[in-house]
Amino acid sequence: MIVELVNTGSELMCGRALNTHQQWLCRQLADAGYVVRRQVAVSDEPADIAAAVRESLGQADLVITTGGLGPTSDDRTREVIADLLGLKLRENREVLDQVRNYFEKRNRPMPERVRVEALVPEGAIILPNRHGTAPGLAVPVPPGRFRPGSSPAWLLMLPGPPRELQPMFLESALPLLRRELRPAVERVCRTVHTCGLGESLVQERVEPALSEFVRSGVKIGYCARPGQVDVRLTFAGPGSGDVIARAEQALRAALGGHVFGVDDQSLESVLIDLLAAKGRTLAVAESCTGGCLAHRLTNVPGASRVFVGGFVTYSNELKQRCLGVDAATLETHGAVSEPVALQMAQGARLAANSHYAIAITGIAGPDGGTPDKPVGTVFIAFASPERTIASRKFHPGDRQTFKDVTASDAMNELRRLAMENF
Amino acid sequence: MIVELVNTGSELMCGRALNTHQQWLCRQLADAGYVVRRQVAVSDEPADIAAAVRESLGQADLVITTGGLGPTSDDRTREVIADLLGLKLRENREVLDQVRNYFEKRNRPMPERVRVEALVPEGAIILPNRHGTAPGLAVPVPPGRFRPGSSPAWLLMLPGPPRELQPMFLESALPLLRRELRPAVERVCRTVHTCGLGESLVQERVEPALSEFVRSGVKIGYCARPGQVDVRLTFAGPGSGDVIARAEQALRAALGGHVFGVDDQSLESVLIDLLAAKGRTLAVAESCTGGCLAHRLTNVPGASRVFVGGFVTYSNELKQRCLGVDAATLETHGAVSEPVALQMAQGARLAANSHYAIAITGIAGPDGGTPDKPVGTVFIAFASPERTIASRKFHPGDRQTFKDVTASDAMNELRRLAMENF
Repeated sequence: MIVELVNTGSELMCGRALNTHQQWLCRQLADAGYVVRRQVAVSDEPADIAAAVRESLGQADLVITTGGLGPTSDDRTREVIADLLGLKLRENREVLDQVRNYFEKRNRPMPERVRVEALVPEGAIILPNRHGTAPGLAVPVPPGRFRPGSSPAWLLMLPGPPRELQPMFLESALPLLRRELRPAVERVCRTVHTCGLGESLVQERVEPALSEFVRSGVKIGYCARPGQVDVRLTFAGPGSGDVIARAEQALRAALGGHVFGVDDQSLESVLIDLLAAKGRTLAVAESCTGGCLAHRLTNVPGASRVFVGGFVTYSNELKQRCLGVDAATLETHGAVSEPVALQMAQGARLAANSHYAIAITGIAGPDGGTPDKPVGTVFIAFASPERTIASRKFHPGDRQTFKDVTASDAMNELRRLAMENF
Repeated sequence: MIVELVNTGSELMCGRALNTHQQWLCRQLADAGYVVRRQVAVSDEPADIAAAVRESLGQADLVITTGGLGPTSDDRTREVIADLLGLKLRENREVLDQVRNYFEKRNRPMPERVRVEALVPEGAIILPNRHGTAPGLAVPVPPGRFRPGSSPAWLLMLPGPPRELQPMFLESALPLLRRELRPAVERVCRTVHTCGLGESLVQERVEPALSEFVRSGVKIGYCARPGQVDVRLTFAGPGSGDVIARAEQALRAALGGHVFGVDDQSLESVLIDLLAAKGRTLAVAESCTGGCLAHRLTNVPGASRVFVGGFVTYSNELKQRCLGVDAATLETHGAVSEPVALQMAQGARLAANSHYAIAITGIAGPDGGTPDKPVGTVFIAFASPERTIASRKFHPGDRQTFKDVTASDAMNELRRLAMENF
């Protein structure tokens, strides 16, 4: 099965937007057994879109386009493809009602030009849009029309905004593919997330532990991200689910507590679930991470089971006033110091009346570093009813990477401490 | 001039890596007058690389490849392209010395297979690698070889790691292009960021105001993101800088205060700069956005000039204790209400001793909605020394989009208020 992806958008061609669809769709498709062979991006120009789609239809069993379904003058995909396939566009009553309803719910008048979103090529299957107005469209392309062969190809048009495309793909497009275009070989891919070891150390432990699996065809890939390293296991062939399950077991044995989750699990969701299961609550006090830790924890639906609140104490005054940090300690050791981190953690626990607290104080940069405490220096403290501990870490990098890596480090540390009932 | 980009890497095709080269190179090239017409990504398989490069050489004056120049078994670009062009690979003494030198400086033995990085196709120009070992390669392709025409095409091979590719492109590749492939026309692109209007409303205002510019060749593009709409103006031709400056002026006149910045500016950086210029400080109190607002504000380097601190008061208890919200008000109106938002803003201003405060309380979902206050309902309040005001907003969507859009809404509102010296 040959799968191709066509991303449209002039903002891509002049480098004004990052093509996140490419990664997201390639990943979802690969995990479902439809590995993309070629991805193409072109501008919004009808001639460029038509050329790219025609070429892909000449070789692929499945072609997916993204973008160009909206109401503005540069949204041309629907009409270009209808024209290319010789299909009439007809206004669909049901879609029009949904679009109208979308604006009514928001108490906004429906702009006249949004009406184009209700145009559907004849024979197309409508993929509902739960988070916007333009539906996706799935069109069967008769065999022999663009490429030799005896089965129809499928052309899927998905909308540009990720928050519309992603649920639409998972809820409507993928079930349709599974029904109409079964992949030839069973293929399983599992991504195991680790935290606390560098990429080459992870590889040093994994390779000897998985050598037998590699000989029997399991592929291993590594991906270093800010604050974590992912190990990807892939196997194509009969019984792939079993093979991958056994490989994952061997991998976990080799990496121990550094493994925090798989696939869609995040450090924050794993930590929230763990603390919820233990009936523990958590407060955070952040200086240099500036709310990044609280933000990531509260991205988890239902975080309020565990997360009580956070203090972003950027100024020394606020560290004293909200968290009860001692003026003399700030004076003697500086805001970026172990004694201040310890007091912040204790203060946050008391102020928020929580079981645990995390405190972070450090130097995010780009300015503010000293020879003793260069940019990237950070103290992370943890308080429980019994103890408060702190450690000094060093996470050099740009400001946003520093915030992200430091927040991950703190969450991973508390995950390990909480498992030992710290 | 036709420019095409070919990105190689199996990690791209299974969605395990984001193709940041595409945006970075397309942007650098567009700004230098070389707009990429088509970008293609394929796996590391030699047949896929050869097919993509052959096709691009059949239509483009300039083809740039990324990746596949390293020492491992899946790095095949160099040899595939030499084969395709019928060029012999010869070991280059100078490159070999540089590679050896790289390992010596780091006190590491040079692995034997790294030697392939010194292989250079005959006639190629070497693009030195200051941050790694594999050099880039620029190869002139004789006219008539793959496409009709009388001038040679250029094929550039760049390495995969961004920290190697980026300086190499700016220091060696771009000067070579400017020497060998002068773009035919001057071209300027400007992106104007707006907040507070939907995509179709933005277009309704922009189109009549810019119709004259469109007739004279200015292209307009729209891009909707969570909480903001970008309008992109592009013009190619003599005097493009002037034309775009006048078009931007007309655009700003049509959109008024909804325009908050251009190109690399973000809402948070614009707000921090504005408040810093006015000598104002800011504190935030967040419930449903859970630290997202503080996180985004503190992503701006030097945010501490303005941002004093934040309170993530997820629990009612913390709203009372930290911000002095009244128990009776919480009881009567509920945590998601205008009176509570007002008290949170006043309380945050007092507790942090800041000039301004923003407070946010709402329902992020997926649970917690009621018929009166469905998921997406939010109250945003602003406090200054003179006044406290609040408004009710509705930002339906998934949890993370809700947090992002609500934080953007709050920052944009304060930006407009601060300009009027609220």
